[in-house]
Amino acid sequence: MADLKLYNFPRSGNCYKVRLLLSMLGLDYERVDLDLIKGESLTEAFKRINPRGQVPVLVDGDLVIWDSMAILVYLARRYAASDWLPTDPLGETRVMQWLAVSENELLYGLARARAALVFGKPFDLKLCQQDGRAGLSVLELKLSESDWLAADNVSIADIACYPYVSLAAEGEVSLQPYPAVCAWLGRVEGLPDWVPFLPG
Amino acid sequence: MADLKLYNFPRSGNCYKVRLLLSMLGLDYERVDLDLIKGESLTEAFKRINPRGQVPVLVDGDLVIWDSMAILVYLARRYAASDWLPTDPLGETRVMQWLAVSENELLYGLARARAALVFGKPFDLKLCQQDGRAGLSVLELKLSESDWLAADNVSIADIACYPYVSLAAEGEVSLQPYPAVCAWLGRVEGLPDWVPFLPG
Repeated sequence: MADLKLYNFPRSGNCYKVRLLLSMLGLDYERVDLDLIKGESLTEAFKRINPRGQVPVLVDGDLVIWDSMAILVYLARRYAASDWLPTDPLGETRVMQWLAVSENELLYGLARARAALVFGKPFDLKLCQQDGRAGLSVLELKLSESDWLAADNVSIADIACYPYVSLAAEGEVSLQPYPAVCAWLGRVEGLPDWVPFLPG
Repeated sequence: MADLKLYNFPRSGNCYKVRLLLSMLGLDYERVDLDLIKGESLTEAFKRINPRGQVPVLVDGDLVIWDSMAILVYLARRYAASDWLPTDPLGETRVMQWLAVSENELLYGLARARAALVFGKPFDLKLCQQDGRAGLSVLELKLSESDWLAADNVSIADIACYPYVSLAAEGEVSLQPYPAVCAWLGRVEGLPDWVPFLPG
């Protein structure tokens, strides 16, 4: 039986990636909410847990794992069937390509555009929106010919990319030019044990 | 026998990650240099190879793999001993944590500060330098207690983080406050088959 604890900020898309996968894998966990607006991830006490001063952080027994991408890989390898993260070199590589997009165009494009508008962060909104649209174009191309990003089935690649795409409007990036991306959002939301970003 | 081709830009730190690992694994490859300054990665022909319009891209027989992080994972899984990328969940996760740092604080901090100064890119220099220093502090903390980032030995975590740290001065970020990082740079440079960023 897993003994999992998630340090979480409800309005973080990176935390949402982890909450989604935990739900889809049917894993119970204790949730510890921090208020990032109040700087609660930047205290000395929390930096002993994660020196980067960021959430999410997953604690599994006596293991501490920081970083959303690393946590997705950990959960998939430790608790999931290999279709969530294949073990063959090419299958794993295909997932890694989309994890990279999630960390680049989506995080430094879409998520930062949202952070500029929602949290007042000092990012260059136009540049972020432009990076985000570049990422969406790459997703659109792939999802025009495939239901899922990295395999014939859902994988952690989809879970990593979904949150900031689904929140694109909060960064004033319209998804209207990306119909295949919109259809894919619907497929993710139709998966068993999908959970909304913020519970109603 | 591998039949490898690397689409490369000599002055790209992301390409250098791949050149380093190919060398250390003793893999021969054909190198196709593109001039990114002239926009040679943004042509329609190249975008059919990589829709993101970026290098590096690795071609292995009939496989095309884009993204530096994905290529490191591919080469490690396909051609290297498992110490370069462990197969156990926790060992793999520890590597992923530092791949995430390489994609975040180092790429969007150090590499963008360098791109602003060297290539005249429109990035906020002070913000990039600040992000880069945050990454260096996290590396310093880890490397004060460990020779390598993710394991008792060199792994692709070190190869992913090394290039933009070694190029930090080009973004006017001094490494003087980070002695453990400097010692680690020396350890990487002392590895068999290390190659310099630009051949002399």
